Amino acid sequence: MVKVMVIHGPNINLLGIREPHIYGSLSLDQVNERIQQQAQELGIEVRIMQSNHEGELVEAVHQSYGWAQAIIINPASYTHYSIALRDAIAAVRLPTIEVHLTNIYAREPFRHRSVTGEACLGVVSGFGAESYLLALRAAKNAVEESRR
Amino acid sequence: MVKVMVIHGPNINLLGIREPHIYGSLSLDQVNERIQQQAQELGIEVRIMQSNHEGELVEAVHQSYGWAQAIIINPASYTHYSIALRDAIAAVRLPTIEVHLTNIYAREPFRHRSVTGEACLGVVSGFGAESYLLALRAAKNAVEESRR
Amino acid sequence: MVKVMVIHGPNINLLGIREPHIYGSLSLDQVNERIQQQAQELGIEVRIMQSNHEGELVEAVHQSYGWAQAIIINPASYTHYSIALRDAIAAVRLPTIEVHLTNIYAREPFRHRSVTGEACLGVVSGFGAESYLLALRAAKNAVEESRR
Amino acid sequence: MVKVMVIHGPNINLLGIREPHIYGSLSLDQVNERIQQQAQELGIEVRIMQSNHEGELVEAVHQSYGWAQAIIINPASYTHYSIALRDAIAAVRLPTIEVHLTNIYAREPFRHRSVTGEACLGVVSGFGAESYLLALRAAKNAVEESRR
Amino acid sequence: MVKVMVIHGPNINLLGIREPHIYGSLSLDQVNERIQQQAQELGIEVRIMQSNHEGELVEAVHQSYGWAQAIIINPASYTHYSIALRDAIAAVRLPTIEVHLTNIYAREPFRHRSVTGEACLGVVSGFGAESYLLALRAAKNAVEESRR
Amino acid sequence: MVKVMVIHGPNINLLGIREPHIYGSLSLDQVNERIQQQAQELGIEVRIMQSNHEGELVEAVHQSYGWAQAIIINPASYTHYSIALRDAIAAVRLPTIEVHLTNIYAREPFRHRSVTGEACLGVVSGFGAESYLLALRAAKNAVEESRR
Amino acid sequence: MVKVMVIHGPNINLLGIREPHIYGSLSLDQVNERIQQQAQELGIEVRIMQSNHEGELVEAVHQSYGWAQAIIINPASYTHYSIALRDAIAAVRLPTIEVHLTNIYAREPFRHRSVTGEACLGVVSGFGAESYLLALRAAKNAVEESRR
Amino acid sequence: MVKVMVIHGPNINLLGIREPHIYGSLSLDQVNERIQQQAQELGIEVRIMQSNHEGELVEAVHQSYGWAQAIIINPASYTHYSIALRDAIAAVRLPTIEVHLTNIYAREPFRHRSVTGEACLGVVSGFGAESYLLALRAAKNAVEESRR
Amino acid sequence: MVKVMVIHGPNINLLGIREPHIYGSLSLDQVNERIQQQAQELGIEVRIMQSNHEGELVEAVHQSYGWAQAIIINPASYTHYSIALRDAIAAVRLPTIEVHLTNIYAREPFRHRSVTGEACLGVVSGFGAESYLLALRAAKNAVEESRR
Amino acid sequence: MVKVMVIHGPNINLLGIREPHIYGSLSLDQVNERIQQQAQELGIEVRIMQSNHEGELVEAVHQSYGWAQAIIINPASYTHYSIALRDAIAAVRLPTIEVHLTNIYAREPFRHRSVTGEACLGVVSGFGAESYLLALRAAKNAVEESRR
Amino acid sequence: MVKVMVIHGPNINLLGIREPHIYGSLSLDQVNERIQQQAQELGIEVRIMQSNHEGELVEAVHQSYGWAQAIIINPASYTHYSIALRDAIAAVRLPTIEVHLTNIYAREPFRHRSVTGEACLGVVSGFGAESYLLALRAAKNAVEESRR
Amino acid sequence: MVKVMVIHGPNINLLGIREPHIYGSLSLDQVNERIQQQAQELGIEVRIMQSNHEGELVEAVHQSYGWAQAIIINPASYTHYSIALRDAIAAVRLPTIEVHLTNIYAREPFRHRSVTGEACLGVVSGFGAESYLLALRAAKNAVEESRR
Repeated sequence: MVKVMVIHGPNINLLGIREPHIYGSLSLDQVNERIQQQAQELGIEVRIMQSNHEGELVEAVHQSYGWAQAIIINPASYTHYSIALRDAIAAVRLPTIEVHLTNIYAREPFRHRSVTGEACLGVVSGFGAESYLLALRAAKNAVEESRR
Repeated sequence: MVKVMVIHGPNINLLGIREPHIYGSLSLDQVNERIQQQAQELGIEVRIMQSNHEGELVEAVHQSYGWAQAIIINPASYTHYSIALRDAIAAVRLPTIEVHLTNIYAREPFRHRSVTGEACLGVVSGFGAESYLLALRAAKNAVEESRR
Repeated sequence: MVKVMVIHGPNINLLGIREPHIYGSLSLDQVNERIQQQAQELGIEVRIMQSNHEGELVEAVHQSYGWAQAIIINPASYTHYSIALRDAIAAVRLPTIEVHLTNIYAREPFRHRSVTGEACLGVVSGFGAESYLLALRAAKNAVEESRR
Repeated sequence: MVKVMVIHGPNINLLGIREPHIYGSLSLDQVNERIQQQAQELGIEVRIMQSNHEGELVEAVHQSYGWAQAIIINPASYTHYSIALRDAIAAVRLPTIEVHLTNIYAREPFRHRSVTGEACLGVVSGFGAESYLLALRAAKNAVEESRR
Repeated sequence: MVKVMVIHGPNINLLGIREPHIYGSLSLDQVNERIQQQAQELGIEVRIMQSNHEGELVEAVHQSYGWAQAIIINPASYTHYSIALRDAIAAVRLPTIEVHLTNIYAREPFRHRSVTGEACLGVVSGFGAESYLLALRAAKNAVEESRR
Repeated sequence: MVKVMVIHGPNINLLGIREPHIYGSLSLDQVNERIQQQAQELGIEVRIMQSNHEGELVEAVHQSYGWAQAIIINPASYTHYSIALRDAIAAVRLPTIEVHLTNIYAREPFRHRSVTGEACLGVVSGFGAESYLLALRAAKNAVEESRR
Repeated sequence: MVKVMVIHGPNINLLGIREPHIYGSLSLDQVNERIQQQAQELGIEVRIMQSNHEGELVEAVHQSYGWAQAIIINPASYTHYSIALRDAIAAVRLPTIEVHLTNIYAREPFRHRSVTGEACLGVVSGFGAESYLLALRAAKNAVEESRR
Repeated sequence: MVKVMVIHGPNINLLGIREPHIYGSLSLDQVNERIQQQAQELGIEVRIMQSNHEGELVEAVHQSYGWAQAIIINPASYTHYSIALRDAIAAVRLPTIEVHLTNIYAREPFRHRSVTGEACLGVVSGFGAESYLLALRAAKNAVEESRR
Repeated sequence: MVKVMVIHGPNINLLGIREPHIYGSLSLDQVNERIQQQAQELGIEVRIMQSNHEGELVEAVHQSYGWAQAIIINPASYTHYSIALRDAIAAVRLPTIEVHLTNIYAREPFRHRSVTGEACLGVVSGFGAESYLLALRAAKNAVEESRR
Repeated sequence: MVKVMVIHGPNINLLGIREPHIYGSLSLDQVNERIQQQAQELGIEVRIMQSNHEGELVEAVHQSYGWAQAIIINPASYTHYSIALRDAIAAVRLPTIEVHLTNIYAREPFRHRSVTGEACLGVVSGFGAESYLLALRAAKNAVEESRR
Repeated sequence: MVKVMVIHGPNINLLGIREPHIYGSLSLDQVNERIQQQAQELGIEVRIMQSNHEGELVEAVHQSYGWAQAIIINPASYTHYSIALRDAIAAVRLPTIEVHLTNIYAREPFRHRSVTGEACLGVVSGFGAESYLLALRAAKNAVEESRR
Repeated sequence: MVKVMVIHGPNINLLGIREPHIYGSLSLDQVNERIQQQAQELGIEVRIMQSNHEGELVEAVHQSYGWAQAIIINPASYTHYSIALRDAIAAVRLPTIEVHLTNIYAREPFRHRSVTGEACLGVVSGFGAESYLLALRAAKNAVEESRR
């Protein structure tokens, strides 16, 4: 069974409560439920965590190593400046998929740049909670391909 | 039935023939076959075209208007400078999903910038041919959501 | 009788159909009609063409040479990056007037720069279809002045 | 009767006397005469002022408010750095047309940028004294359109 | 016999007719004749094409693959922004020689940058029609060396 | 009674102990005492926290939501790069006042830019501990104005 | 009694009349009245002036020297480019407080930079007319502290 | 007799009174006296003016035309941004010598750039009041050379 | 006895386990052992800590104050953006030596810049674990010199 | 007989000995031999020098004046920053051909810029030792053309 | 007697021979003669040297130390990039006057920047050979002032 | 016995004589003595040279090849722009250690960039003469490691 670590970055815990016109009306719990559901359908075991702390996100990436075969991460604001997170992703060398609820190219210029994305396998950006579900499929694919 | 226009940009016709270590070993025909298959499974009707001409890509976007409910486009090299293509996407106002075979953030710096992406709903980047299949799901979702 | 080539760039064929709050509600046909009318009043013979293809626009500029005494061109999105179009305008050395429906200084920063404008005699920008009519007067003036 | 304030910026008082190969051989008085003539033909009442002082130009824009329905302004050198002038234009919210004797895109790079143009309705640039006459037509049009 | 594709970019069809003080007084036909002559002397078979269309130039590069052992290309204005052309050259992996009639370093700053040159074997720039003849020798050399 | 959360960022715990010539000679405890005093005078209830952890500051902003009607924050070094903090402030949508002990415009260039300030109502910068006291007044004002 | 010069920059004379959604609905007279009132309460004697002329603002700063113990200045648009004003402030060496009605960090990027702020003691920005009142307190404080 | 207009820019009226460690201890009157003395020795007739107003400086340049054969100008802070002053200098085409009391290359980076210097014959910078005296010699020289 | 705090930044806990071709094959424990050994030989007492949290690193620097006479810090990824860490180092004013396992000048451009290095006494970069041992000597030296 | 000065810049004396995978396996002596041979075939008299000293290269250019009719120069590393060499080439005004063993556009970004190239007739770059031989032909051509 | 070292940088040995329309028609010998003459009149003893070698210029600055009381240097092309020369000037701490034959602000943008000027007392630029003569006066002044 | 070439760049010959507050009070002879002493203790044979000439430094690097097993170089001012020196270091491929007396990150911004450092094994910066002694240890280490 494919194992995938799902990591939510800063401010994602406010999901659904605030600014629903931007981030959608689902709460983080509801998003996680849909991730669990989709994971089950695809035969994926997931662990999910959220943190507002850069250091905890770095360590969540470290802890994926040994258990998970792939990482799905929404680094949120850290996307644009956390070299620490990027170096963590590069260090564990698991196929990692960066996810964004919104299309970062359609927002403020300082959000167009992804520091973490350089260390990832791919990026899914702009489809709300659906972004995670697409990433689960991509993660499964990536793991299976690397097994061949 | 959801109708989706799939547009391949310049040099994509060489797919599978050249640089398979970068772009994968599937030919454009094989990629299109997989797109058709996936579309059928998802109940999507697709039209597919490829062109190396910026003007023809602009017009393919125009022609989507009236027939398609969504566009999937891999603008390839034009991603980084074609304001004409971007304006075409912005003009027809269909939910448009930008697709890349490779993760553009993990390549040369001049490929990190997406001029066309600013006018799109979302971006799927880095999963080879799989990028298109994920985009089909995202397109279907987007159309269904807008119908509600 | 003064002869003027009028060249419309990419996406102008969608005029009046899409985004009327930005580009006005006249269709390209209606704009062309008004250009014809104004030309007649000013004693100008016009030929009008539209293309979404950079190469065709380059060639329309080439073909102006020998027939026209002035060019009116709305390079639309190509304004901001087409060195090819700029070089074509510089090569034929006809007085050329760049036209924009909208005021490019009041839009996104990447539209403030005009690559093609450097090779033109002047620019009329921001008055909708009226921009073309003002350009016709300017073109006539320029031709008559150069005859003296 | 449409009322239009015509504002000439710094160094324009030297017109016709110095550097005629760049700015043409008409004096400011002759230019103003042609503006008056054209205004009369178009049924426009004009007031004309010139100043080398940024503050006086700002106040001329302020004073347009209440009397004029449109402004024609050649900010000359201030075009490229006067945020004060730009903010004045934005504040009075009259349709304002920026005018240049020369094509600013065909001169030194520091003249390509228009700080004031961002707050204007449109720009006419490159036709010598004719630029003002075209702007008068554009101003009349703009006022009439806004009345509908 | 060594086979070389010679590709002329936009506005090169105007050669000899316009701006002879910059580009020399030979027409494109005369340049092509000299290329043919030189090729014959060096035992090279050449095919020559010219286009103002970015897409056609991309496809000319594609078509070189299978027939030619080397490409000589003057991308003209596209040199400075066509990532599509650059990617085409990189994709077919034939030794490609970029040619310029003028020394691009001695012209406007925006012409100092070569986007296409990054994918080429070498560059010959600044010798008028002679640039092509030198490139033919360089192409022959490159092909013969790769055979050893 | 108006409720205000006061948040001190990294290194503020060293206040008064180190570099008094820059930051003043009051300790953080003394500053907090003055804040409490002033709050009492103005009829404001305050909660005060300090952290060197970006994540804890983000969460302090989150926790303000539900209890406080306004936030006063001195993001200190994080001012210049913490998009996470900025996004937190933007998310909770409480009137937030950025405070600096020193005038950031009079220090090193990298301190001139405020990433967090973009999401705030206003900024008070350069008056030492007094900056907080002025901010308390501003916060009270803002809350009362929004009630009207 | 503490003496403070209050200086309003360009376009502030339009306050309350135009764009009240940005600058608030108080007229300059009303703002000045509130400044007078607050000054009286704090035992400050104020002189107030407004000018749209950079030179007059420079001279108002000069004239503060000899009479005032502190300056409150809203340089408005000149904030972003008037080195002359900055040099005047630096020359008279009175504690100077820069004031802005709006939060300049939350507006267009060209307003984020403060040329004049580098020569000031501190900045109060974003609280409408209240910004001046807070600045009066800060000015009083600064003067009293320097007396100790 | 050679006639030279000497123009002092903004804040120069404070000379000798403030910041003598930077600008020297001579007052503007004393500097002017030394200029007069030196002029007399060299057989030069001088007129001297000072203004803090950009517009008055522009007009002082205009008025030099017709009377003076050379201009000596210390544009002070305007050196770095007044395109209006630069255009005035370029327009009157008199040999103009830019003077600075301090060495602008040894000060803040924003003072390294001279907008006005581009239109001048030469620059003398860094020698305090002596800069003007050297400029007088240079002016005399320039006028005499142009007479030959 | 000289007391030195040794601080390892983010991802250093993975040392020796991952990417040994870049960072060497020693684990963090082995590196620490060598640091202890070297410290003993040099008569230095060391305390060692590692953290992936910016805030904890800031606090480790704070805690050095009072106990240590020097700091050796490898800020790892935080080197390039943590102004908080830099301000902490500047605040405690202990001689601080920045250490890097790899030569940051020979890696990606974004690693060439050291934000923290500006507040340090010196930098040792590029010698793997040996970098720490050299830093110990440098630290001892610095402390002894400051005692003289 | 055409006379050509051939100048090799810094580090070229190591040719063939070091990094043959980049610069080819020919030694400088062997390259010079081939240059001599080719020169003889073309009826060119050559003088060849190499230096690692910028000043000697400047003087070699000076000395070409009076003897040579053309210069072939490989400025190597100095290409990218030696304004002294550039000014020397511009001063002697001989047709000068810049030569590079490698294609400078296909290397690190700091090698894309040619300071010296701006003063040259043309550039031949990317063909190893062959670059010199092609330059000899180009030099001969240029001299003969200028004689006509 | 005041002793002044006069140092001419690269390509100055070509003076008068080449490009007299830019640099004047005097040879270096004639310029030196005028320097000697002027020095004699002012009671200055001068030593003059010229070199095209950056290292020799650095050493000429070193050798000034001990003999000269001031340096006059025309670093020519090295002005714009020689940090070595700048550091030499800063090290010897003699009043140093930078001289240019032409006005560097009126030439190409890369000549506007003076790396060496930052370490000098002042700059005299744009008066041909006269620049040196003015610098001699300035040098004498500076030495005499420092004696007071 | 390990052999190390020690190379001192420009202005280092002034060491101890000038600006001792920046560079320390040891003369170059004293520094060299300490280097010799330390070398002896570590069983290293050293050769030491100093030059102000970029070309001589390049050649010192060349000459290291064949004799030395490592290079210690303080490129001083050339650190920031000498691509020639960098290419020399890259060419000889000996482990090279860049040394600075001062911490280049704590000085002017133009000293933060190291052009030569990119080709080195490591950098020791900021410890005065001690920097060389630490580099000797690092050099010995590097040589011994490469022998294993």
